[in-house]
Amino acid sequence: MREGYRVAVVGVGAVGEELLRVLSTTSLPIREIKVLARTSRVVEVDGIKYTVRETKPEEFEGVDIALFAGTERASELFAKEAIKRGAIVIDNSATFRLEPDVPLVVPEVNPEDLEWHKGLIANPNCSTIQMVVALKPLYERSRIKRIFAATYQAVSGTGRDAITELRQQSILQLIYSEDVKMTYSYPYRIAFNLIPQIGSFNEMGYTSEEMKMVNETHKILHDPDIKITATCVRVPVFNCHSEAVYIETEEKITADEAREILRNAPGVKVIDEPSPRSGRSYPMPIDADGKDEVFVGRIREDPFVETGLHLWIVADNLRKGAALNAVQIAEEMHKRGLLKR
Amino acid sequence: MREGYRVAVVGVGAVGEELLRVLSTTSLPIREIKVLARTSRVVEVDGIKYTVRETKPEEFEGVDIALFAGTERASELFAKEAIKRGAIVIDNSATFRLEPDVPLVVPEVNPEDLEWHKGLIANPNCSTIQMVVALKPLYERSRIKRIFAATYQAVSGTGRDAITELRQQSILQLIYSEDVKMTYSYPYRIAFNLIPQIGSFNEMGYTSEEMKMVNETHKILHDPDIKITATCVRVPVFNCHSEAVYIETEEKITADEAREILRNAPGVKVIDEPSPRSGRSYPMPIDADGKDEVFVGRIREDPFVETGLHLWIVADNLRKGAALNAVQIAEEMHKRGLLKR
Repeated sequence: MREGYRVAVVGVGAVGEELLRVLSTTSLPIREIKVLARTSRVVEVDGIKYTVRETKPEEFEGVDIALFAGTERASELFAKEAIKRGAIVIDNSATFRLEPDVPLVVPEVNPEDLEWHKGLIANPNCSTIQMVVALKPLYERSRIKRIFAATYQAVSGTGRDAITELRQQSILQLIYSEDVKMTYSYPYRIAFNLIPQIGSFNEMGYTSEEMKMVNETHKILHDPDIKITATCVRVPVFNCHSEAVYIETEEKITADEAREILRNAPGVKVIDEPSPRSGRSYPMPIDADGKDEVFVGRIREDPFVETGLHLWIVADNLRKGAALNAVQIAEEMHKRGLLKR
Repeated sequence: MREGYRVAVVGVGAVGEELLRVLSTTSLPIREIKVLARTSRVVEVDGIKYTVRETKPEEFEGVDIALFAGTERASELFAKEAIKRGAIVIDNSATFRLEPDVPLVVPEVNPEDLEWHKGLIANPNCSTIQMVVALKPLYERSRIKRIFAATYQAVSGTGRDAITELRQQSILQLIYSEDVKMTYSYPYRIAFNLIPQIGSFNEMGYTSEEMKMVNETHKILHDPDIKITATCVRVPVFNCHSEAVYIETEEKITADEAREILRNAPGVKVIDEPSPRSGRSYPMPIDADGKDEVFVGRIREDPFVETGLHLWIVADNLRKGAALNAVQIAEEMHKRGLLKR
């Protein structure tokens, strides 16, 4: 019998597909990958065919690790069924993230929270993950008092249909120069436009995505006193989220020091050098696509506020923002002996 | 002989063309419009043909108002020649904006600065104009101590070639799914990408666009003590700049109060109502295209900072951000009797 874990992947949308891609190169010993979704079918990812079975409670029998990348509904219906049958669930949905007995983990940031898991570990929101990977090393140097974030989020975060829709709307717009009235992924056209809404609005006028960045960052950094506020915007980019992040620290961190700290930080790649082409290099969505690292550039001090610092943070939201982080959680749990076979 | 001013338009790029469009509907009495550019030719705007003459000092003889919308070089070479010949120059370039004896004017914000002009009035930078139109009415209610801005700027701000390039790159990208290596408007591909650089870098790592937002806002609001800091980003949108702006005021302004103030503010249109389609309405680039107003939405208080307030500001950068503002300066000067015929 082969050594390794029996892994179930629930959902074969944009994140589920990326999970299969990441699992094909993980160091985690894997005996079997079972793919589950709402309906049984065959899907192909990078030339490999996977037989998809319908998600049912009994499918989790014998599964060691269940990676949920389906809808919130799928997590609500089946996560507890999987745990009941002995699987460790790593859930990409927002369903359980803020529950006090559920660790919310980014392995570079708070791996210690895995130790108190009760069978379910939540994978944070994409825009939160890339921000905390970049901020944690700075937080260790000096506590961060305030965070202001404006995001530039790609359509892949909405799912595979949104990628298709951006492509189709763009072609129609370019050919007919007419406004595209029919939309299914967003309330308005996204091609050559911006939509300053991700998720639904609360009574204060914040969107759920903006509140995720607040609440999840508080939980991951174990510091509910950081004053965090965000504006989240969907942009006509296929993949990779970007963020203009401004922080205020208790003690001054110079731009040079921040660059040095981030160059030595796990999972981070600094792109912030003199450049003949643009004057100075910086990361862009096209650079981060398909990459594992969180890219950071435009690091600069605030000329008016001594402890203020700007960062421009870009990452592949399907990989580090979702699938890769989930698999890294499993890898970290394996290393810590938290997975049973 | 017909009544009215003799107007010269210098430059027939994206802004020059928009100037001709705005001039065709202005209330300003105009006797003659002379179009000047680097080379003589005929251009057509909205079906009207204009004969373009080569810009030379003697072309400004008899001109009452010279609207400069050409390159910085054109302003450097010819603005003083025009003034010498008795013309009032309204200059869209950055060349003279920060000179102490040059008023930098947004008519809704600081029309009084027109009174001390010495023949030349500078038109501010596009991203600054739309921000100060939205912020001035709030500033009058309570002084603004801090401004944090992240911009989402359309390619039309770069000029007509950049619009063509976004269109061409998008088509190539959609058809060949290949990265477009050749770029002329930007250091990198803009189609389905973001470029966090507008202008050139200073030694602190800020771009010239980011510093314009700082220095021009200080000058227009007559308050060099506001702590302003910005991140400016080019986005794949054809026209209309958007800005996520966060302010801190001396006294608290509630979101309701801010909406009320802005609903009554000149040149502003608030789009921030309950909406069945999206939960809450907000402005987007496709809404502002071709419009005169500065659109404001996503008005909300900071849950953690008593005096913090978010705004999402969208405007047509070719109109209010450039051509319209320049013509409004002329209209305001006419009203104040500052133009001679």
